[in-house]
Amino acid sequence: MKIAFIGGTGPAGLGLGARFARAGHEVAIGSRSIERAQDAAAKVIALAESGVVTGGTNDEIVAAADVVFLAVRAEAQPETVRALGGLLDGKIVVSIANPLAVADGRAIYQSPAEGSLAEEAQRNAAGARVVSAFHEIRVSRFAKLDRQIDSDTIVTGDDEAAKEAVMGLCRDIGVRPVDGGPLFNSRYVEAFVAVLVTINFRYKAGVSYRITGLP
Amino acid sequence: MKIAFIGGTGPAGLGLGARFARAGHEVAIGSRSIERAQDAAAKVIALAESGVVTGGTNDEIVAAADVVFLAVRAEAQPETVRALGGLLDGKIVVSIANPLAVADGRAIYQSPAEGSLAEEAQRNAAGARVVSAFHEIRVSRFAKLDRQIDSDTIVTGDDEAAKEAVMGLCRDIGVRPVDGGPLFNSRYVEAFVAVLVTINFRYKAGVSYRITGLP
Repeated sequence: MKIAFIGGTGPAGLGLGARFARAGHEVAIGSRSIERAQDAAAKVIALAESGVVTGGTNDEIVAAADVVFLAVRAEAQPETVRALGGLLDGKIVVSIANPLAVADGRAIYQSPAEGSLAEEAQRNAAGARVVSAFHEIRVSRFAKLDRQIDSDTIVTGDDEAAKEAVMGLCRDIGVRPVDGGPLFNSRYVEAFVAVLVTINFRYKAGVSYRITGLP
Repeated sequence: MKIAFIGGTGPAGLGLGARFARAGHEVAIGSRSIERAQDAAAKVIALAESGVVTGGTNDEIVAAADVVFLAVRAEAQPETVRALGGLLDGKIVVSIANPLAVADGRAIYQSPAEGSLAEEAQRNAAGARVVSAFHEIRVSRFAKLDRQIDSDTIVTGDDEAAKEAVMGLCRDIGVRPVDGGPLFNSRYVEAFVAVLVTINFRYKAGVSYRITGLP
């Protein structure tokens, strides 16, 4: 598939982009600046050691993509989605950011008006097929390509075909997806990351979770 | 330790009570009716096959207890705690219920005014040392004493000594506790159970989670 990373010059675009490139997908790294996008694409190729990775402006790469990852910071996501607007119509759009305020050894969920960042993206891009995934995994993990990611990911969304496609992408990079139901449930998944962050502080660790008891 | 189960005639009191009795703790099963309490205590003894289990009114068993489990249904917990009031002063009080509305193949978190049932218990019993635990584990699991519980539990609380005591109780019955920080975080843990319930419907399973990446 053709996978675009909006704001892909950060760690999520770099690491996830490299993993998807290595898995055989066509990856496009987007930025508002074409130069920064191309620099980042070169880094992704170097990290992946193989695959097809290009750089372009956010608008350009969205137009050509099957799947669009929102790889900007949580604070910037709503404005970024609004700016793309109708360009996202019909696209599978993946919301991965967690709106957390981290301070004093813990994190507090900054609940968006819609309940979650994923639902806010769906409101701001009504024609998009928004899927929520990868919240449990620290983005810095993705760039360590020689290491298996010891985590499941709970995937939520209202468009079942779009959700199934994203679950396939998870499997392609060795992360087991678990269908967590409608996009509404993304609020619980995003908020729970506040607990994982707190645990990280308490144990000086980088934790995630695996779901037990599945068939 | 002396462990009391308020409203202990239900599945949580039965199963957890039997596990703690078998682990060597003194267990008291409480009810508003002394007869029902004694009937339930007999069931717990039969299930545990050994140990010290007594029945009594909720007020009686609280007075003698070191640790008080709130084993009533979520809807009944606030009123139950208010009724006990000052009897809980200085006691370790464990909040295990999840305020969820389950319908149409999913669950929705019914957020209490305080953010979580555990925090509501703390507000209603200001002198209690409230700890939140065991949310991830379906209460019906506890009564299957021949089966290991394939789950961690995230434990939250503001009284560190009380939290450590409850984490010890978790270990006593073979459930790994993970320190999830302040009682405030119980809201995220309780709400996340809505996702686990949704997954149970989707996969016809009984899921929980284990935390990965701990030292």
